[in-house]
Amino acid sequence: MRLKPIIATLAIAVASTAVADEGMWQPHQLPELESILKAKGLEIDAKSISKLTEFPMNAVISLGGCTASFVSPKGLVVTNHHCAYGSIQYNSTPENNILENGFLAKTTAEELPAAPGSRIYVTETVTNVTDKVLTGTEQLSGKARYDALQNNEKALVANCEADESYRCNVYSFHGGLEFYLMKSLEIKDVRLAYAPAMGVGKYGGDIDNWMWPRHTGDFSFYRAYVGKNGKPAEFSEDNVPYVPDSFLSVSAKGVQQGDFVMVTGYPGRTNRYRIAAEVDYVFNTSYPKSRQHNAKYVSLIKENSADGSKARIAYESTIAGYNNYIKNYGSMIESFNKGTMFERKKEFEQQLSAWINSDAQRKKQYGKVLNALTELVAQSQQHNERDRMLGYVHRSQMISTARSLYRLAYEKQQPNAARESGYQQRDMPRFEAGLKRMTRRYDETVDKAILLHFLELYAALPRAERFVEVDNAFELQNGFNKAKHSALLNEMYAKSTLNDEATRLALFNQSLTEIEQSQDPFIQYAKAIFTVMKAEEDKDKALAGKLQAARPKLMAAIIAFNKAQNKAVYADANSTLRVTYGTVGGYSPQDGLVATPFTTLEGLLAKNTDIEPFNAPKKLQQQIKAKLFGDYSGGMNTVPVNFLSNVDTTGGNSGSPTLNGKAQLVGLLFDGVYESIIGDWDYNPALNRSIHVDSRYMLWVMDKVDNAQNLLDEMHIVH
Amino acid sequence: MRLKPIIATLAIAVASTAVADEGMWQPHQLPELESILKAKGLEIDAKSISKLTEFPMNAVISLGGCTASFVSPKGLVVTNHHCAYGSIQYNSTPENNILENGFLAKTTAEELPAAPGSRIYVTETVTNVTDKVLTGTEQLSGKARYDALQNNEKALVANCEADESYRCNVYSFHGGLEFYLMKSLEIKDVRLAYAPAMGVGKYGGDIDNWMWPRHTGDFSFYRAYVGKNGKPAEFSEDNVPYVPDSFLSVSAKGVQQGDFVMVTGYPGRTNRYRIAAEVDYVFNTSYPKSRQHNAKYVSLIKENSADGSKARIAYESTIAGYNNYIKNYGSMIESFNKGTMFERKKEFEQQLSAWINSDAQRKKQYGKVLNALTELVAQSQQHNERDRMLGYVHRSQMISTARSLYRLAYEKQQPNAARESGYQQRDMPRFEAGLKRMTRRYDETVDKAILLHFLELYAALPRAERFVEVDNAFELQNGFNKAKHSALLNEMYAKSTLNDEATRLALFNQSLTEIEQSQDPFIQYAKAIFTVMKAEEDKDKALAGKLQAARPKLMAAIIAFNKAQNKAVYADANSTLRVTYGTVGGYSPQDGLVATPFTTLEGLLAKNTDIEPFNAPKKLQQQIKAKLFGDYSGGMNTVPVNFLSNVDTTGGNSGSPTLNGKAQLVGLLFDGVYESIIGDWDYNPALNRSIHVDSRYMLWVMDKVDNAQNLLDEMHIVH
Repeated sequence: MRLKPIIATLAIAVASTAVADEGMWQPHQLPELESILKAKGLEIDAKSISKLTEFPMNAVISLGGCTASFVSPKGLVVTNHHCAYGSIQYNSTPENNILENGFLAKTTAEELPAAPGSRIYVTETVTNVTDKVLTGTEQLSGKARYDALQNNEKALVANCEADESYRCNVYSFHGGLEFYLMKSLEIKDVRLAYAPAMGVGKYGGDIDNWMWPRHTGDFSFYRAYVGKNGKPAEFSEDNVPYVPDSFLSVSAKGVQQGDFVMVTGYPGRTNRYRIAAEVDYVFNTSYPKSRQHNAKYVSLIKENSADGSKARIAYESTIAGYNNYIKNYGSMIESFNKGTMFERKKEFEQQLSAWINSDAQRKKQYGKVLNALTELVAQSQQHNERDRMLGYVHRSQMISTARSLYRLAYEKQQPNAARESGYQQRDMPRFEAGLKRMTRRYDETVDKAILLHFLELYAALPRAERFVEVDNAFELQNGFNKAKHSALLNEMYAKSTLNDEATRLALFNQSLTEIEQSQDPFIQYAKAIFTVMKAEEDKDKALAGKLQAARPKLMAAIIAFNKAQNKAVYADANSTLRVTYGTVGGYSPQDGLVATPFTTLEGLLAKNTDIEPFNAPKKLQQQIKAKLFGDYSGGMNTVPVNFLSNVDTTGGNSGSPTLNGKAQLVGLLFDGVYESIIGDWDYNPALNRSIHVDSRYMLWVMDKVDNAQNLLDEMHIVH
Repeated sequence: MRLKPIIATLAIAVASTAVADEGMWQPHQLPELESILKAKGLEIDAKSISKLTEFPMNAVISLGGCTASFVSPKGLVVTNHHCAYGSIQYNSTPENNILENGFLAKTTAEELPAAPGSRIYVTETVTNVTDKVLTGTEQLSGKARYDALQNNEKALVANCEADESYRCNVYSFHGGLEFYLMKSLEIKDVRLAYAPAMGVGKYGGDIDNWMWPRHTGDFSFYRAYVGKNGKPAEFSEDNVPYVPDSFLSVSAKGVQQGDFVMVTGYPGRTNRYRIAAEVDYVFNTSYPKSRQHNAKYVSLIKENSADGSKARIAYESTIAGYNNYIKNYGSMIESFNKGTMFERKKEFEQQLSAWINSDAQRKKQYGKVLNALTELVAQSQQHNERDRMLGYVHRSQMISTARSLYRLAYEKQQPNAARESGYQQRDMPRFEAGLKRMTRRYDETVDKAILLHFLELYAALPRAERFVEVDNAFELQNGFNKAKHSALLNEMYAKSTLNDEATRLALFNQSLTEIEQSQDPFIQYAKAIFTVMKAEEDKDKALAGKLQAARPKLMAAIIAFNKAQNKAVYADANSTLRVTYGTVGGYSPQDGLVATPFTTLEGLLAKNTDIEPFNAPKKLQQQIKAKLFGDYSGGMNTVPVNFLSNVDTTGGNSGSPTLNGKAQLVGLLFDGVYESIIGDWDYNPALNRSIHVDSRYMLWVMDKVDNAQNLLDEMHIVH
């Protein structure tokens, strides 16, 4: 009796939201969506998608930050070129520049080890551990609750990881309303099998990033290896290719406009359920200010390093990173100002409050949750200007290095397990690498200019918002004076030896007692502000504990409210496995323009200038001119390169297989359009479009350009 | 017997070119195009368009550089906002900023005089004067031919202008194959009747210039006044509105995608028949080099004037002008490199040569013309690098002012009529205005830096390419030395008083003997190089004379060749009245994108930031939000703002009426898309699109935003 109405109401519910094809669904939710999925074009049983150990879900894997999938019975893995970038770069040398020219192992023996630390995670079980995570936290609040919850999670993880073949993590859903333990096989021997040339895999580069039209062949191939016993093992010549339980067939037919597509993957983080007060702060204060300061940051680098100079080269990747954020925030601010997200958010909260207050029981249960959360959010924003400005001051590489080294010495006093995350034994290789990297990424003039600028802004804060310890250290008690503080910084930089790699590595091994003897002015600064900063950190944790308790209550109210309206609710993305579905189609980025859903080889050629990033390999250009489309045209008189769909994705989804109704791989998700960047906060059905590399282009490049016949032969290609 | 086949072949001929809707046709050619025009959607008699004194052609007028049309029986004239810009600016004051806020005369008494020199030209007759222009030139060559031809033209013009109500000009067609005398009524009392706010008329500003999507209300209204006797007269309160022989009805219904449209106007200049050698030089040398030097020019200004400084403000319009050229040349170079114009040009010349050589008579007549012209073109390019670099050196405002003043004194030795164009009595007001304008447009540091940079490039030319006189004046005999030449320029600028307006105006009145006494170093430079520069000018005129003789011969061959293939030939644009036709429609600017043919009020609102140039008036925004579309939606649930068509236009067409098949005004031509900038050289049917302001938007703004009921009442609106 219960089943039928539930399915019926869910079908209605889904229909009302599914118009938008919005939603990053947990696999276990899929059976509820079955009727709508079938109507849209899913041909396999929706229930099979809900089972992680069955096809096709057991073919979808995580690289940690990216998604991938098995595409052969011999452990062949396909993901994005930008997800394998580090491994390609790692194996690239001036003599054998495989990043530039591409790489193909003609036999498994020729495969190259991926960058150190590369992993493939095959999720095997997902267990609801809400009760266990919350055990003993009910009567606690603030930092005590935060710490108790952390300890419960650590215990669950430690217990799960008793089997060394597995990596385990506890993930919070709906802001802490539910917790799931994910247990994944951790494959540690990952090798690079094939990567196209940079002029394919990163065609369009940063210029085309987030942009449509797009012509990027963003694909590369790894292979998973395990020990002879079939269990994960560190790299060894004796290892053998991993035999996955299943793998995806790859379609050479591709998709057409309007076709059903489904993307399975590990989206990182969305903020769709943040409250109006948070949206207001983020879009009206935080993003605009960060954007402005980041732009100034880039200007300061450029003003203090000549084009092409050693200093400028040291900061090129920093500049690229900042410009990426500037573009990203710019898009979100633009979309926010044009759109109605804030109005809809406020309206929703009014409706929610009205619904809660219209029933005595509900009022008792949820009556205070929105206000309570709003108040905590206000608390978290209270010192935002101070936190922002001091944050920029502490971005000085001298200061951040000094603070990290000092903190490490402090943490080393405790047993490994009790140390703060980032300072445990497992974090040391990355820590040391960071200390070494600074040698190539630092210039004194630039670092000093940036510090001077942000010190001036920090000093302009009201005295009550400043820290006495910081003021004392930088002699800001009577405000900022350019000449004086410039001289002060000159003196500090002249005296410091943190710019020397050997010095940094020596400090890396010192105890707290030892490092406290250092006369380095930046280490002394780190020491001087340590106590007050640690106190601030504890305050933040206490607030986090309160937020962890408050947010689930609001989410429970939202879920109940939606349920009352027959609306299904998906959780915000949290790096766990999700499924999103939709259709292939274009959109209108602005009045008077329409983005059509496919780009073509001819369009790629028209963009080509032979200058990076528009430098397709000569052979690829020749094959286009010769119209050698092979069996990869899917009925068009060309080969489609990239396509658009309205699936709901975000960072972390990169490399996700795009599946057709038969669960065949028809593409790889690799980006969203510029207008969809705000999608992390708000899915706009008119503008939210994901960009996929077309499987036809991938196969065409493998076949007609790179002669990757050995890989094509082991894959299952559907013609 | 002859009539039928001719029409038939012409119909075929036109069909073969008309696929592209290419062509700027002389009115007298239109009857030949009648069948195709009718098939496309022309409802009025094509023959009527060929008669300048009949409707609708007698309603189409020239403003000199822009086109306009009569839209009421009381002399009301509509043109582009950017064509009336000078007059709006002229009447704008800080207290009554009509440029910013717009202007509407509620009665004719409130109308404002247009900027001094504003004229309306009503072309009344077009006479073929080829024989008269060429009389006596047949046996001449070089400078003698050039001068003789100039004299013939001057005589024809003087004779025609005996009636002071008329302005006459002789225009060369097909590079000098034909000459026509245009006789136009010259209306001298022009008044501003209505201009929308800058946030309508220049919405999108320079950012959107040449761009689609577009939302510019680029329209304004003048009124033509004449003396009580009906004849043109200078401004007088006693003057009365001019009664045109006809005027255009304005459509409130507008057009739909695929509709026939026709644009009548005065396109300025195209180069569609230039030979391959010219195309090669322009696109592979001239434009790229100019673009590079212009970009450097802008950099030099910016590097030598701080943002917002007095110096920077003085150069803002110079920067805007240079940036405009940089964008323009950039587009053309891009289109040239992507396209096949050069290959098609060479192929055409091969086909032409083959056709000429396949017949003895033709070979005799045309066999040498292409080579002869190619050789003359090579001669004209011989010293291009020298001419370019010296040209940039002479762009120094100190040098150009000195040279102009010296040349003026030289020309004043001769009777007015014999003086070089630009130095006659009629040119003096503009000359004097230029001397005054320099006060607001000049900065010594900037001018010096630019001169120093280009002197260095000039000095790098081979010695044989340099002028001894220039080398001597700037001590470049032993090359350029930055320190030395910087000091030399410092000395010159310190000594010169040309930066003083009073000094310039005093020199303006001096005789050659007087000015030669000047100790100003820049005047002395002008004097030192005068003889050699004059000799160069005479050489250029001699070459021009040869080109004037050679080019018509090639054009005659081209016309004969096309005629043999039943293809009609239109002449390159030359600022004379032309008709072009086509259809309303979008295009694909690049793979994966489609430009749709209409923009809408909602799109305008979405672009609005309230920051110039995206600052639509508040009332306009309110009316959009209120969906007050009135009777101007043309069946769409909005009001269309701008639209695209494939008519063949160029600069000078600005303000041209866009007519439907009934010759009703459905829009105003005001721009072309970015991809059509190369259209001056090559019409690409896939990419050549003109941008029109929709008559519905114009009427909607007049009605719903600006309350211009008085004007709407005197116009004939077709609902």
